[in-house]
Amino acid sequence: MTPATAPQAAASQTLARCRELVQPALVEAVERLHPWLAEMAAHALGWTRSEDGFRPGSQGKGVRQALAVLCAEAVGAPAECALAGAVTVELVHTFSLVHDDIMDGDETRRQRESTWKAYGPGPAILAGDAMCALAAQILCDAPAAQVGAAVRHLADALHDMARGQADDLSFEFRSWAGPDAVRVHEYRSMAEHKTGALLGCATGLGAVLAGAPAATVAGLTRAGRHLGVAFQAVDDLLGIWGDPQDTGKPVYSDLRRLKKTYPVLAALATDTGAAGQLIGILESGGTLDDAGARQAADLIEEAGGRHATRSEAQQHLNRAHDCLTALDLEPTACDEIRTLLPFLIHRSA
Amino acid sequence: MTPATAPQAAASQTLARCRELVQPALVEAVERLHPWLAEMAAHALGWTRSEDGFRPGSQGKGVRQALAVLCAEAVGAPAECALAGAVTVELVHTFSLVHDDIMDGDETRRQRESTWKAYGPGPAILAGDAMCALAAQILCDAPAAQVGAAVRHLADALHDMARGQADDLSFEFRSWAGPDAVRVHEYRSMAEHKTGALLGCATGLGAVLAGAPAATVAGLTRAGRHLGVAFQAVDDLLGIWGDPQDTGKPVYSDLRRLKKTYPVLAALATDTGAAGQLIGILESGGTLDDAGARQAADLIEEAGGRHATRSEAQQHLNRAHDCLTALDLEPTACDEIRTLLPFLIHRSA
Repeated sequence: MTPATAPQAAASQTLARCRELVQPALVEAVERLHPWLAEMAAHALGWTRSEDGFRPGSQGKGVRQALAVLCAEAVGAPAECALAGAVTVELVHTFSLVHDDIMDGDETRRQRESTWKAYGPGPAILAGDAMCALAAQILCDAPAAQVGAAVRHLADALHDMARGQADDLSFEFRSWAGPDAVRVHEYRSMAEHKTGALLGCATGLGAVLAGAPAATVAGLTRAGRHLGVAFQAVDDLLGIWGDPQDTGKPVYSDLRRLKKTYPVLAALATDTGAAGQLIGILESGGTLDDAGARQAADLIEEAGGRHATRSEAQQHLNRAHDCLTALDLEPTACDEIRTLLPFLIHRSA
Repeated sequence: MTPATAPQAAASQTLARCRELVQPALVEAVERLHPWLAEMAAHALGWTRSEDGFRPGSQGKGVRQALAVLCAEAVGAPAECALAGAVTVELVHTFSLVHDDIMDGDETRRQRESTWKAYGPGPAILAGDAMCALAAQILCDAPAAQVGAAVRHLADALHDMARGQADDLSFEFRSWAGPDAVRVHEYRSMAEHKTGALLGCATGLGAVLAGAPAATVAGLTRAGRHLGVAFQAVDDLLGIWGDPQDTGKPVYSDLRRLKKTYPVLAALATDTGAAGQLIGILESGGTLDDAGARQAADLIEEAGGRHATRSEAQQHLNRAHDCLTALDLEPTACDEIRTLLPFLIHRSA
């Protein structure tokens, strides 16, 4: 742990303010579910149950809810306008984690058992479906003038997320080299769908629910999508070089599973000796052991894959900033968004 | 096979007319999906792929799409008004079958492998999620004045379906007798959510998209929900006494798996000797063999469970008719709906 810098502290404060604002509405929403499904949703959200209901606990940072709130404020509306949007994107984020963990066979999430591991795959599928339905219901409670556009944002994001996840799953069946190999631009498109769509939904929904004009909504949506691509690139760095104490995952975890992520694909795209050696290791099949994973990580770094991924994250972060600059936004909220963005990139978990 | 009676022929004709009308829009919708997800959706829909795209094949009867179309016509609108609603409910129905088959471990559906069996559970979860997202997108394309109410119908139905399925799954963990036993009224509520919600969504959406007044929408929604309860009761009869050649399932299939369905619960609710003997067989645990299942089926019949289930179906069918009678509907379309209803109840698969 390094001591927090002033901008980091400001970002943490912004996230905490938004969490505090959204939490009661999120708890109320989850309580609308069938009790068994609510229990699973609470588990997935990292909550515990106390005598008088659910107690939000060691959940995620709440990036998506914060973006929805801040974007409403950035177009001059009170934060409360964005509440339905903030709850919706947190529910959809949680639903997608629950289903993704089943698809990927991941047994832990947020330092506890993943939902399917704790409750079984069938119930976890159902809990995810119910959270998704609830998210749509919550948006339908928004003011009538905004419901159509808001639901359109949600439906488009859900469809894009499924498309991105389909690409990600199918990359697994593609080869490491030759004409069938996954290209960096395909990976970027996957990340924009899988991760960017929901961040873009969060920023866009905040603006939609605040009644912002279409051009502003489009600009904030684009900012969110770029942020998503940057976010995924950082996830990929952490999946290889992250500290197991911070990430809760084994060292080199993505490499052990031979997952096709940005650093690997960027390394393979170079005309270096390291790339050639890397192919040999990756094509050996199965999973990699400690030594193999370490060697692959070193070769990726030598071929420039680690640097290229950092640069990918920074470029998309810059483009998110550019999207904000192009819009006429309320300065205080816009500054809060700008403080948040690098915090999401320079993270250790 | 018995020869079709005149009303049966008329009902088949109505279903065929609606299928023909909706099919092109449904194919177009499925083609919007990621190619891999589209392939799974087509599989789940019973379609085959030809050189120039998907070919609808041995799919279901298309009850839900027909109800959406007929209800739009019944409130005086052209069938085309209901297209988005018809496509939406078929997609949601298919999505729910794909996810339910995973939860229930069912390996076949519509005379072919279930989607998870053919493609794996992970991809099947994703295909279901994508169909659900697509359904919401399709509704967002409806005329602006109707989108809010239409999406509300869909979101409420999705939430109710999850609630019903949660009840159905949790009934499995309840006992056959004593204070924890599942009561008939709880089962009916489950059926109204699990099966009735989507039929009510179909009838309601047809009316919403036709611009019908709220009272008419509510009346048609209620009719659909009653039809759903009747439909589920008939499903339960077929799950025990259905002809394996028609249903594609082994004889007594629900009893073998010790599933808590209406006929069993109605039999157990009687104060008969047969009910007492039935408890003994059901509480022996595990699954039932041929002899055990046959004996249980005979005891259910002796205790009146088969008769009570037929009567349950008929009562809810009557209530659906009553809902139609209470509304001022266009006579030709209303007659088509009335012809359809008994056809859905007196079925063999």
